[in-house]
Amino acid sequence: MVGRDEYRDAMARVGAAVNVITTDGLAGRRGFTASAVCSVSDAPPTLLVCVNRTHDSHAALLANGIMCINTLNARQSHLSDVFAGFTNQEGAARFAAAGIWYEMATGAPALHEAVVSFDCRIVQTTDVGTHSVFFAEVEAVRHGTAHDALIYFGRAYHPVAHPAG
Amino acid sequence: MVGRDEYRDAMARVGAAVNVITTDGLAGRRGFTASAVCSVSDAPPTLLVCVNRTHDSHAALLANGIMCINTLNARQSHLSDVFAGFTNQEGAARFAAAGIWYEMATGAPALHEAVVSFDCRIVQTTDVGTHSVFFAEVEAVRHGTAHDALIYFGRAYHPVAHPAG
Repeated sequence: MVGRDEYRDAMARVGAAVNVITTDGLAGRRGFTASAVCSVSDAPPTLLVCVNRTHDSHAALLANGIMCINTLNARQSHLSDVFAGFTNQEGAARFAAAGIWYEMATGAPALHEAVVSFDCRIVQTTDVGTHSVFFAEVEAVRHGTAHDALIYFGRAYHPVAHPAG
Repeated sequence: MVGRDEYRDAMARVGAAVNVITTDGLAGRRGFTASAVCSVSDAPPTLLVCVNRTHDSHAALLANGIMCINTLNARQSHLSDVFAGFTNQEGAARFAAAGIWYEMATGAPALHEAVVSFDCRIVQTTDVGTHSVFFAEVEAVRHGTAHDALIYFGRAYHPVAHPAG
């Protein structure tokens, strides 16, 4: 088995899109930055998100049962920082600190000008080690007008131009 | 619920690293290209990979119990094509068609000059819709000397330079 630091150094070499995951409902409005997001199936359309069980958004996701996955565009790295907690806002205060927010289908906050937003209902969870994996079916999607992606790789942000320009 | 094509168009806007997943053992040597890979936890170090249950590698992964996740460098897109089946090699023939292969800890084929290779033991699976999610603990990692990443975004390959050069 490899050590924690060796694993983290290795994962830094795997590039990934940067997403802000949001939820809202009786358990409150919460949001956090995540790269541990991927597609599971297109039948039905399902994504997954891995969340540490000690994270305050974990309980909110479980209780609210909905999430919106907002994939950041190349000029939204400040949103990644706010929702990763680097600017010290916690809980719902993060939404006031950055971004323009609206609702799609479920009521979870959707980010204006995300490259794409997936508005989802959580249908299944699995616990693995320190984390839960949330599986979410996609109720609605919306594309932003900004096309260039924000990729996190080598512990830095990189813009990647969309081939369609 | 969104339709299949709408979902696929939306996922095309989520950039991702390109990986060749391999296995070997009594059920044979198999490999396939996957972007549905992400980190789950660093305690213990665990990744996940989503695999369609109709895929011939699915049974091999279950039976062999090991996998190596090889993250491609910016000049290895031809390996992505071979292991996605675009060049018509199937099964073990793909390994002869492209790549230089060696073994790390588990015996699964590791790709020479991958940006990073994660040699893993499968510890848990969960079925979701058409796919299984394989959770795998990392027994060994190796970094290649090539640092630039291959990112798939907008249905095209993009090189992303490592910040360290």
